[in-house]
Amino acid sequence: MAITSDLETSRVEELDHLLTVLKPKLLSYIEKADRDSKNYEVNSLGHYYEPQFLKKQFFHPPQATSIVGNDPQDDDKLFEVIDKVLEYSVNTWNPGFLDKLYASNNPIGVVSDIILSMLNTNSHVYTVSPVLSIIENHIGRKYASLFFTNHRKTCGGLTFSGGSWSNITSLQMARSLRFPDTKENGNGSYKFAVYSSKHCHYSVEKAAILLGLGSSNVFKVNILADGSMDANDLEKKIDQSIKDGYTPLYINATAGTTVFGSYDPFEKIADIAQKYKIHFHVDGSWGGNVIFSATHKKKLAGVERADSITVNPHKMLGVPNTCSFLLVPHVSHFQESMSLKAPYLFHGREEEEDENYDLADGTMGCGRRADSFKFYMAWLYFGFEGFASRVDHAFAIARDFVEKISRDKRFELVIGDTENLPQCLQVCFYYRPSSYTHEDNTDITRYISRELHKQGKYLVDFSPNPTSSDNKGEFFRVVFNSPILSDEVVDDLITSIVESGETYKHI
Amino acid sequence: MAITSDLETSRVEELDHLLTVLKPKLLSYIEKADRDSKNYEVNSLGHYYEPQFLKKQFFHPPQATSIVGNDPQDDDKLFEVIDKVLEYSVNTWNPGFLDKLYASNNPIGVVSDIILSMLNTNSHVYTVSPVLSIIENHIGRKYASLFFTNHRKTCGGLTFSGGSWSNITSLQMARSLRFPDTKENGNGSYKFAVYSSKHCHYSVEKAAILLGLGSSNVFKVNILADGSMDANDLEKKIDQSIKDGYTPLYINATAGTTVFGSYDPFEKIADIAQKYKIHFHVDGSWGGNVIFSATHKKKLAGVERADSITVNPHKMLGVPNTCSFLLVPHVSHFQESMSLKAPYLFHGREEEEDENYDLADGTMGCGRRADSFKFYMAWLYFGFEGFASRVDHAFAIARDFVEKISRDKRFELVIGDTENLPQCLQVCFYYRPSSYTHEDNTDITRYISRELHKQGKYLVDFSPNPTSSDNKGEFFRVVFNSPILSDEVVDDLITSIVESGETYKHI
Repeated sequence: MAITSDLETSRVEELDHLLTVLKPKLLSYIEKADRDSKNYEVNSLGHYYEPQFLKKQFFHPPQATSIVGNDPQDDDKLFEVIDKVLEYSVNTWNPGFLDKLYASNNPIGVVSDIILSMLNTNSHVYTVSPVLSIIENHIGRKYASLFFTNHRKTCGGLTFSGGSWSNITSLQMARSLRFPDTKENGNGSYKFAVYSSKHCHYSVEKAAILLGLGSSNVFKVNILADGSMDANDLEKKIDQSIKDGYTPLYINATAGTTVFGSYDPFEKIADIAQKYKIHFHVDGSWGGNVIFSATHKKKLAGVERADSITVNPHKMLGVPNTCSFLLVPHVSHFQESMSLKAPYLFHGREEEEDENYDLADGTMGCGRRADSFKFYMAWLYFGFEGFASRVDHAFAIARDFVEKISRDKRFELVIGDTENLPQCLQVCFYYRPSSYTHEDNTDITRYISRELHKQGKYLVDFSPNPTSSDNKGEFFRVVFNSPILSDEVVDDLITSIVESGETYKHI
Repeated sequence: MAITSDLETSRVEELDHLLTVLKPKLLSYIEKADRDSKNYEVNSLGHYYEPQFLKKQFFHPPQATSIVGNDPQDDDKLFEVIDKVLEYSVNTWNPGFLDKLYASNNPIGVVSDIILSMLNTNSHVYTVSPVLSIIENHIGRKYASLFFTNHRKTCGGLTFSGGSWSNITSLQMARSLRFPDTKENGNGSYKFAVYSSKHCHYSVEKAAILLGLGSSNVFKVNILADGSMDANDLEKKIDQSIKDGYTPLYINATAGTTVFGSYDPFEKIADIAQKYKIHFHVDGSWGGNVIFSATHKKKLAGVERADSITVNPHKMLGVPNTCSFLLVPHVSHFQESMSLKAPYLFHGREEEEDENYDLADGTMGCGRRADSFKFYMAWLYFGFEGFASRVDHAFAIARDFVEKISRDKRFELVIGDTENLPQCLQVCFYYRPSSYTHEDNTDITRYISRELHKQGKYLVDFSPNPTSSDNKGEFFRVVFNSPILSDEVVDDLITSIVESGETYKHI
């Protein structure tokens, strides 16, 4: 008897049909978020919905079509679910999406994701991923060579599924290269120390926890007034930790901190790392891509001396989520520090090669989606000059916002000399008309942010100061990171904040 | 002066145009891999290309259009590159793709990836990911409740970017829950022991290295004749390690080992884990999805007693790469073991909730792509019954292959009683006509595998035995994991192996 399946029997027709129905939905989803479109809906960003409300929409009653069950759903039901997903999600194509350190996707990004999906390549070994692996090596080296200008021939990079995982991998690389016995024996009696500023991303602490070093062995270095690391304090903390019996392992410096967008003093930190022979990592997940801007790349002076750099094209460059690179001056360090030589997967190659094509062998993982391809396609499509103009434009928008609110007495910038802002693409500020004190900040900030979101108009984030104990409470952190922003959006945002603020009742 | 950008100024038209050009390319890519199509090309799987050859195609001369540079490429050039990527990649839609533990994508998988790409959601916090977060919680619990039949109300799951990262996270969960002081202090003076069979995936060892435990503290438990873990030896090794001053931390059992597809004896292992109070993890990346099959789920007896289970819908269920879940009986364990409560990102919620919606807080990472959505969509589209029939059909195909080669004297199965094969969806065998000895195995296996690939017809993998020192060398490992396979493909594969084998010259 023939052994066949009823599934996937007409793949071409199925995909053809699904794409035909889907395409106009996609286009109109963008269209209503496009300010210049005749179908623009100002509130297309999406309203705020409580989880309980959404769960009801999707999963009640228990026989709702959006609940997975025993039987397949027909296409009509399926598209009802898709419509609902689009309707209730945040429409990041709307210019009001100013909340996080990433922006909307763009047409070439969608195309890249489609190609990746069609290929369904696992970029772990060359046999099944010939093209995407050579592309990852190519683009990894190209990207790394922008930073490691003295190691253009040996540098390279691989992608990991987000900045945290790139940072985690860099800490593993540091430990494995400098203390190779730890691969076999673990941390053992080493008392490793990690140094990072008080304003670094939490992933540094999480990395230290994951690697069995412990969060208390992350020495949090003081910051200066602009939010950047105090290099003098770094050296003090290293000295003290050595006296206390620690083995200094790893310094994390940040290019574009999460809250204030500060850039640490890389030259000074590089000197210190060199003096004490400590792995020097730069977390440039957010701010590393100023490398593309002739104007702003000076913020990165000294980064070329790093032992590893994390940079995420999915943040400042608008490549689809997720796309994060760990870049290193010597690409061979990936395999040197990570490989286990599992013979059932990595068969090796017959001829001598200058590079590794079984990419997973240079990671702590195995299966991989080739996120690097999305960056490659974006670079082809926009060119270096496109990335440069994207970054410069975004800085110009953020600067415009800084100038406008610094002339308006109802606003107050949280840190920094107005002249030197923005440090990166976010602006941190209080909305504080004279009738309010700093004690009101948290309330009023959360109130306005919620109101804007309720209107489906702007999504902006807020945060406490990571270090300050000035009791000034929470403030706005608004991120200007998209070519679709203009000075008109800036004006409208300011008006919207003020209008919402005026409805705030001081309790 | 207005501040605007030249980029992304006509997003709707751009995407419309790109999709219009792309769609027929996608359809014909599938069509030529469809055995039933009039445009079927038997060799559409793709030939084998050396890296040097491919690098030449893409990156030489230095001004090739597929090299990223300063200027943007126009659409024609872009599509030339896309054509080249498709042409030289492995076409996994071809029924000859039998190499790895995953198969081709399918139409609903492509659609899911497109929706994810359009939304560009970062599923780390609820504010920006309302819908995809409630869907992940919903599908995570639904999935987990298939396994944790006694914890249907509390169980749940989150996705990680591949089975390795799910396994790594489970080890962190084990350490953090049982020895909470390690979060702050690191491994310190603990001498943690991890236990896993000699046939487990390398990620267990990598996890131990990453967590600072060290590979030498992974105790490799002996296996039985069928490749499954010898539970008696496990207990012996635990006893001995305790005598040697170790703190037993974590047992990894495997549901579907990488090479032989063996299932460890979960009931016995659960008893041992319970007796010694050790975290019991099941790596079911590959074989866990037999849970959907009424016939084959018995292989998982005892798994409901696990403390954590890794299962990858991107393997046996045909969900696009990557989609890996870590499932746990108590979903709160994610936050309990991973959270750092970073106030600048996780703002908490006002009302009391029964579940967490800021999903990244329950992981060691931050930014996330909502891979769970692809599984959700696949489940809606195929239904539980579709998954069941997919799994059953694949087992039937693998069984057909086992029966046919066990009747053919030129083939020899590597392990197991023919009656009980296949254990999972792969079959391991030698092609060994009487004129060859076992010393020829590696050569002949690699030769045939290369020949089939050169013809663009079949991609099959090979491996040494992970433990044996019988000098029998490498053998074929062929994976039957797709609804498009039929008994006809099985017959043709056997013929193709024999034909290639006959051209092998014994040196």
